[in-house]
Amino acid sequence: MSPLAQPNGTATGAAAARYSGARVSRVEDARLLTGRGTFVDDVVRPGMLHACFVRSPLARARILGIDASEALALDGVHAVFTAEDLNPDVREQWYTLTGKDVPDTPRPPLAEDEVRFVGDPVALVVAEDRYIAEDAVELVSVDYDPLPPVVDYVTARDAEALVHAGYPRNVAGETAGRPAAELDPIFDGAPVVVRETIYQQAYAPVPMETRGMVAEWSAPDGELTIWAATQSPHEVRLFCSRLLGLPEHRVRVVMRDTGGGFGQKVMPLREDMCVMLAARKLPAAVKWIEDRRENLMSAGKSRHEHGDARMAFDADGTILAAAMDFVQDVGAYPTPWPVGTAGVIGMLFPGPYRIADATFSSTCVFSNTTGRAAYRGPWQFESVAREVLLDIAARRMGMDPADLRRKNLLKFDDLPFSNPNGMGVYTDVTPLETFEHGLTMLDYDAFRREQKRAREQGRFLGVGTCSYVEPTTAGMNLLSTEGATIRIEPSGKVNVYVSGGSSGNSIETTVVQLTADALGVDIADVNTVQGDTAVTPFGGGTSGSRSGSMTAGAVAETASVLRERMTAIAAHCLEAAVGDIDLIGGRAAVRGVPSAGMSVAEIAQIAYFQPDALPPGTPPGLEASGRYRAREPMIWTNATHVCTCEVDPVTGAVTILRYIVSEDCGPMINPNVVEGQIAGGTVQGIGGALYEHLAYDEDGNPVTTTFMDYLLPTAVEVPAIEYGHLETPGPGEGGYKGVGEGGAIGAPPAVVNAVADALAPFGVEITRLPITPESIVALVRGAQRTVTG
Amino acid sequence: MSPLAQPNGTATGAAAARYSGARVSRVEDARLLTGRGTFVDDVVRPGMLHACFVRSPLARARILGIDASEALALDGVHAVFTAEDLNPDVREQWYTLTGKDVPDTPRPPLAEDEVRFVGDPVALVVAEDRYIAEDAVELVSVDYDPLPPVVDYVTARDAEALVHAGYPRNVAGETAGRPAAELDPIFDGAPVVVRETIYQQAYAPVPMETRGMVAEWSAPDGELTIWAATQSPHEVRLFCSRLLGLPEHRVRVVMRDTGGGFGQKVMPLREDMCVMLAARKLPAAVKWIEDRRENLMSAGKSRHEHGDARMAFDADGTILAAAMDFVQDVGAYPTPWPVGTAGVIGMLFPGPYRIADATFSSTCVFSNTTGRAAYRGPWQFESVAREVLLDIAARRMGMDPADLRRKNLLKFDDLPFSNPNGMGVYTDVTPLETFEHGLTMLDYDAFRREQKRAREQGRFLGVGTCSYVEPTTAGMNLLSTEGATIRIEPSGKVNVYVSGGSSGNSIETTVVQLTADALGVDIADVNTVQGDTAVTPFGGGTSGSRSGSMTAGAVAETASVLRERMTAIAAHCLEAAVGDIDLIGGRAAVRGVPSAGMSVAEIAQIAYFQPDALPPGTPPGLEASGRYRAREPMIWTNATHVCTCEVDPVTGAVTILRYIVSEDCGPMINPNVVEGQIAGGTVQGIGGALYEHLAYDEDGNPVTTTFMDYLLPTAVEVPAIEYGHLETPGPGEGGYKGVGEGGAIGAPPAVVNAVADALAPFGVEITRLPITPESIVALVRGAQRTVTG
Repeated sequence: MSPLAQPNGTATGAAAARYSGARVSRVEDARLLTGRGTFVDDVVRPGMLHACFVRSPLARARILGIDASEALALDGVHAVFTAEDLNPDVREQWYTLTGKDVPDTPRPPLAEDEVRFVGDPVALVVAEDRYIAEDAVELVSVDYDPLPPVVDYVTARDAEALVHAGYPRNVAGETAGRPAAELDPIFDGAPVVVRETIYQQAYAPVPMETRGMVAEWSAPDGELTIWAATQSPHEVRLFCSRLLGLPEHRVRVVMRDTGGGFGQKVMPLREDMCVMLAARKLPAAVKWIEDRRENLMSAGKSRHEHGDARMAFDADGTILAAAMDFVQDVGAYPTPWPVGTAGVIGMLFPGPYRIADATFSSTCVFSNTTGRAAYRGPWQFESVAREVLLDIAARRMGMDPADLRRKNLLKFDDLPFSNPNGMGVYTDVTPLETFEHGLTMLDYDAFRREQKRAREQGRFLGVGTCSYVEPTTAGMNLLSTEGATIRIEPSGKVNVYVSGGSSGNSIETTVVQLTADALGVDIADVNTVQGDTAVTPFGGGTSGSRSGSMTAGAVAETASVLRERMTAIAAHCLEAAVGDIDLIGGRAAVRGVPSAGMSVAEIAQIAYFQPDALPPGTPPGLEASGRYRAREPMIWTNATHVCTCEVDPVTGAVTILRYIVSEDCGPMINPNVVEGQIAGGTVQGIGGALYEHLAYDEDGNPVTTTFMDYLLPTAVEVPAIEYGHLETPGPGEGGYKGVGEGGAIGAPPAVVNAVADALAPFGVEITRLPITPESIVALVRGAQRTVTG
Repeated sequence: MSPLAQPNGTATGAAAARYSGARVSRVEDARLLTGRGTFVDDVVRPGMLHACFVRSPLARARILGIDASEALALDGVHAVFTAEDLNPDVREQWYTLTGKDVPDTPRPPLAEDEVRFVGDPVALVVAEDRYIAEDAVELVSVDYDPLPPVVDYVTARDAEALVHAGYPRNVAGETAGRPAAELDPIFDGAPVVVRETIYQQAYAPVPMETRGMVAEWSAPDGELTIWAATQSPHEVRLFCSRLLGLPEHRVRVVMRDTGGGFGQKVMPLREDMCVMLAARKLPAAVKWIEDRRENLMSAGKSRHEHGDARMAFDADGTILAAAMDFVQDVGAYPTPWPVGTAGVIGMLFPGPYRIADATFSSTCVFSNTTGRAAYRGPWQFESVAREVLLDIAARRMGMDPADLRRKNLLKFDDLPFSNPNGMGVYTDVTPLETFEHGLTMLDYDAFRREQKRAREQGRFLGVGTCSYVEPTTAGMNLLSTEGATIRIEPSGKVNVYVSGGSSGNSIETTVVQLTADALGVDIADVNTVQGDTAVTPFGGGTSGSRSGSMTAGAVAETASVLRERMTAIAAHCLEAAVGDIDLIGGRAAVRGVPSAGMSVAEIAQIAYFQPDALPPGTPPGLEASGRYRAREPMIWTNATHVCTCEVDPVTGAVTILRYIVSEDCGPMINPNVVEGQIAGGTVQGIGGALYEHLAYDEDGNPVTTTFMDYLLPTAVEVPAIEYGHLETPGPGEGGYKGVGEGGAIGAPPAVVNAVADALAPFGVEITRLPITPESIVALVRGAQRTVTG
């Protein structure tokens, strides 16, 4: 089967699918575009108090004492909590996403004895309003004894100063593949070996809505209610229940709208813990809303890493082996478990290529900076290292990078193919096919001709690509199931409940579409309720590009019970065979007898109000709760990004000309949503390649704590993205494979390669991100000096 | 089987029942007793507006014009709506409780053209706060043309003036049994015929919390959210959806705590409609909270009726036939369908007695007073007419009333017995048994001796009883099913969802008890979520004493699925036979092997997180949605009330000495709750017999619109009630038969009979309620005049 032959097919097998695959408008938009969304900061509770953190101004210091007396004397200040007050209340501290048994790094809610990065929370001030709380923070006097900080993670491994005294070295963990020596014969004997160390800067998700929480303890009931900005309300509930030793059903977590997460809101972090712990000691709800400075200073960073990457090639460009020694900065307080994703980076380094031999090592290094946290495709560096190295290799070998890739990329017919680092078996992916599709969309040869003409005019155009395969983690951890409850109400209207929650990923629209198709009703007749743990079934939330495929499974599993019941009722009433009933257009119709049928509303009336009219053995009502179990631990998805740009070697300015994403996430539930996901991720990836940098000075002071310093791409910098879709079904429900993270994975190398291709005439290579104008100017000048010097 | 033999048995058959039948403390109390309940008036929404009604000061008048200009000019007034604005938007106006097809009386949201009682809503003022709204109400100028009102319902039937011009007479409807002439031979030939016309005054539920609603329209989403004080959130949702022509799933009704309903909050009334209609025209939420004056003037009345009651007796006291011609005041705008309950009053008149022949007629008469509305046991007058008549008959025949009853009361062994008016077949009731049990509790003979001694001392003691059978309406209308969703969460804690809602009937406690038993877990591990239509399955709410028995069915139906799944998982893991697994104490234990077992939490961990460890064919998760279907249209329940009192014939003061309720509502889920229900109803019945009177003057002006005028019994007037319980299982789930209404049905005749018994030496009979001190003094003086005159 050629995947290219089915550009818009669906794998649901439901002939009645009206909405799956269609560009349905987002149901979230009505409220969001009219300003009626409910974000955490919109939550107001009676007598609500406001919290602010006292944070460390030093990267590393001993805390000699904290004097809160002046703050407490300020009118309107309710409490000042320190580690002494909150930390002893911690019972358990593990996340469902990573499981109880991963070896974890320390995670005190408030700093104990020592601060470990600038922004480390030291105390929590609670006051009547935010203004007073902010003023009171200034009045809390902390006596610090400064210590020399470990700022540079590259040298941290062997530094004398220790970020955590409990570790013999500044190493959180290490993993490795087969002994590198086993590959020596290949590398030693290969006609060509290319080796580069590629560095990526720290950057971060920076969601439009910062972190935040309102927590309200009801002592009489022993119940804690939390309004959270989160990607996973059930994770927050279970985590909180463990943290405080409260029964799960006495914690309610409500999320309505969350203004982006991108990994940052996938697990409650230290500040969230502080608010949970403090809430139980307060007489009213407490609100904490992170400000932007705090978000950039303390909400975690990602992508700060480098890899010594190498590949061995045959003379014709065939890749013989691949290896990488990878080092990652996990800061002082990483979210768990960076060692795991660091390992994945190493394992995925061979990517979508026909590489038989590979190995890797991965090392996670502590530093006195903000902790490493999840970010959309947390293993994304694998693509940077590989794809940048491949372009460098092509240039060294005098080949067009496209030709080098064509020679090595896996195609659908090569599958199944085992990842040479033991990361599993690739199935249902189309690396070569999406690559060719992307180049065709660009007209690669025409671009090369245009590039040549431009160079003759002194203009420097470049093209870069990135091809990757991505494991979406539907079944990989404790979150391998997903539940749905569906109620067809007495009037025939439908309510569908999934754990979900709108963090920008359109999961409400997705659920409404899938349910309407599964029940054969109009999409306007379906409502979805999500994001409230007291209301929705347990589910894994948004992470690992799982929510689409898992929720699809939950809806399908549950709807099938109701389809069967509706069909039975209709067959009974219409005196037809069950097999002759079609549910379509809000009606149960008898196949071949257009006049015979009844509406879903009529079926519901019988189910609820006329149980005597039900067929024997059919229960009354039209409600079901079901749960889907992922069929595979991982689902593989893939894409190729193609970027063209023009670089001004004098100013260092990079202008992206075209940006093409040719992807294969399986059948699309909603092309608008798929493209929205890709666009968002791609823009983040472009930001990572060119603009964003969560930078520290030598003393460990963060220097990019405002949007004047931390540069996000805006509409001006980002081109209209062009999309190409293959739709090869995967093994899960509906064949959906997941698309949430891919954009952010594919974009950085495509941009780097495009810039490097543009600058090829100068004989320079780019091995350090981000590619700032200064860095380009410096590279070009350096190359010119080398040439002329 | 003697029902007396099973005083505390349960009919669930579950050997593991730890909580059903136990005096479990109410789970509602933690929040209510600490002032953390959420009543409608506690709901605050952003920019919320406040509504007040302009009400008619006249009982009957044409509206010539309404000038709202002065009100609209007041700063802060947002809108003034009249019938022209709101009434045309009404689409459908029927209730699920009564069905679409009952012939209904008019029910305009706001008065059109004519006002029909003092308090009739004429306009709705909406302003920024309640103070401004109240002021603006005074500024709305309504030009009335007064018309002669129809105040006295007794003469209304043949009055010239018509309450509703569309009716030929002031009659809303009539029903009747077999032709009275058929009974003439019995009455003509009977040794004794007793005939009295017995009058009952208007009184009302007067819940502690008045009516109220917050309604918020979200135009972008087309969604209406309603926070309501209601007994049935799903009724409010469906009604509103029909009223406004909105899809059911776009209306969300939330109730949290409701401070009593007693029938008044079972259906949305005209004011509720106005708020729903107005909300769609307003940019923010609108709150309407009824004040006490409005509640007493406009929320409806009940019990205003009389019956020409007669019975034929054999010489030994055996009842040969019973008949009643019954007339009911339905006011101007009754809730539907008074004709139905008026018919039930006639049909139930023979009550729990072995009466072979009977008939009745029932007439519903309009008047220019507030509409008749449901009230706890809306057919309650049947007991007043019968039981008062029986005591009069006993005195006429020179028999002790107890002996007369003993001769005629049905006993368990007489069943099944067909109601002679075709009201169905009594099963599972114990009229004679509860009667004897009640008299034994009192020591009736001892009381008679004490009464005799007291009379010799010039003190007048009396004893009265009332025995009744009551049909609870589990399966009688569209609400013959009830749903539950149960989720055993990943930690093994339980959330159970039923439509329910706490209106004082402890339904939360009931559900938690039943669920804990059904799943074999600790009660503290169960939480219930109720009262929010977006969250809970459709259900019928609280009416007709149905919620206990129906919810028990829903929980049992749903829990059985989870029991089966948990048992399968445990058997698989413990390598035991499914039949050997007991779920008890939060554990699955292997019978006979005390050491072998696993906790529900461990089972849940497997169900959610280790689906590979599930037995083949067992779905993951522990969630189920089920729906119970009532097994019978009606369930019969019964009780005997016994009251003793002392009456001061000089002052007319009545002091209740002892009050005994000997009842049989089937197995008790929670004796505290059963007794709480009985106590509440009994106090209302005592109020109805002695104190409460929703009175009008001759012009139709209400004269009891404050608690200074409308007299509620307080703790001072009410004795400690003594309870006796038989527990004869009924035909529904668990054998539960319903107890919510009975207290209010049984108390008035018991009190009347006790007072009349006390006054027997004066040769007076009481045939008019309430028994005020004046009325007693007048009766005694009248009798003394007769004797001495």
